Amino acid sequence: MRDAVRQATLAELLDRGYTGLTVENVAERSGVHKTTVYRRWGGVEGLISDALELAGDEPWPIPDTGSVEGDLRGIVQLVRTGFDDPELGPVSSAFVAAAMQNPSAARALHEFFVARHEQSAEVVRRAVARGELPDVVDVKEVIRVAVAPVYYRLFVAHEPVTERDADRAADAALAAARAGVLDGV
Amino acid sequence: MRDAVRQATLAELLDRGYTGLTVENVAERSGVHKTTVYRRWGGVEGLISDALELAGDEPWPIPDTGSVEGDLRGIVQLVRTGFDDPELGPVSSAFVAAAMQNPSAARALHEFFVARHEQSAEVVRRAVARGELPDVVDVKEVIRVAVAPVYYRLFVAHEPVTERDADRAADAALAAARAGVLDGV
Repeated sequence: MRDAVRQATLAELLDRGYTGLTVENVAERSGVHKTTVYRRWGGVEGLISDALELAGDEPWPIPDTGSVEGDLRGIVQLVRTGFDDPELGPVSSAFVAAAMQNPSAARALHEFFVARHEQSAEVVRRAVARGELPDVVDVKEVIRVAVAPVYYRLFVAHEPVTERDADRAADAALAAARAGVLDGV
Repeated sequence: MRDAVRQATLAELLDRGYTGLTVENVAERSGVHKTTVYRRWGGVEGLISDALELAGDEPWPIPDTGSVEGDLRGIVQLVRTGFDDPELGPVSSAFVAAAMQNPSAARALHEFFVARHEQSAEVVRRAVARGELPDVVDVKEVIRVAVAPVYYRLFVAHEPVTERDADRAADAALAAARAGVLDGV
């Protein structure tokens, strides 16, 4: 039942976005009774948090190109193409929007990104192991700086994001890491 | 009348956020009749776009510290402290949230950032004039890369932003510009 409700939530987010998400529609689509959905998930906030947890469990294909430049570019391109994807994009955007409106969705999205940063930082740890970056580098900060310009264009400045924009963002984070400005405390 | 309605919209955004914004409340607070607000502004989307235009006209105190490092740090700290401000923060956050829900607010916010990038890029142009950065640098991209990590923490990963985080973001953009990875086409 939990999986049916989570899948129905994702499908509803895809069809109607965050502002169109209702317990009634999720109940109808999942075949689970409305009162059960209310009792177990509490409301749309609970549905979104649970769906986000599911999204966080999805394997995230960390690139392994042999160089930190290629790996970082790969990660930023994954973010860019993910939001461009006709299925994944609207759902991911709905999560970002929901978290802006709702403290419980914000906490769930925060947890999602804690896990995502931890996973992605693997490419920076590998770079340190290969001697491409100094071991004092803040591995998660390199990831944040690399992906941030893509999110900034999409959700703040509302500008298009080209493949070159994404590569430049990755290269900028790497140049900063090499210059020693992203070292840890 | 236009100014009364715009001020009322900002005050309502401060009190209730984007999801609580209604034409009725703005009409009541501004003393302008509801049907007039509907006729001239169309609805909450129009109210937000108009208020954003007002916000875009506010002078943005571009720092002039004598060095590009100080200027860029100054700009990123302005962004950080702006969202921390008890009056300005909630209104600015409401604009970002509104733009995620609403194409007309997104266009208005985009225009706001076009102007903001153009103004802020002045510190990079000065750096080029002083010989601190090469003249091939993409001046607006330096600004985007500098501020993006602050917005990413606030509105995507939902993490706190420290003064040091903001300085590091500015320093990272500068290191990238110096390394030549933020050059224009």
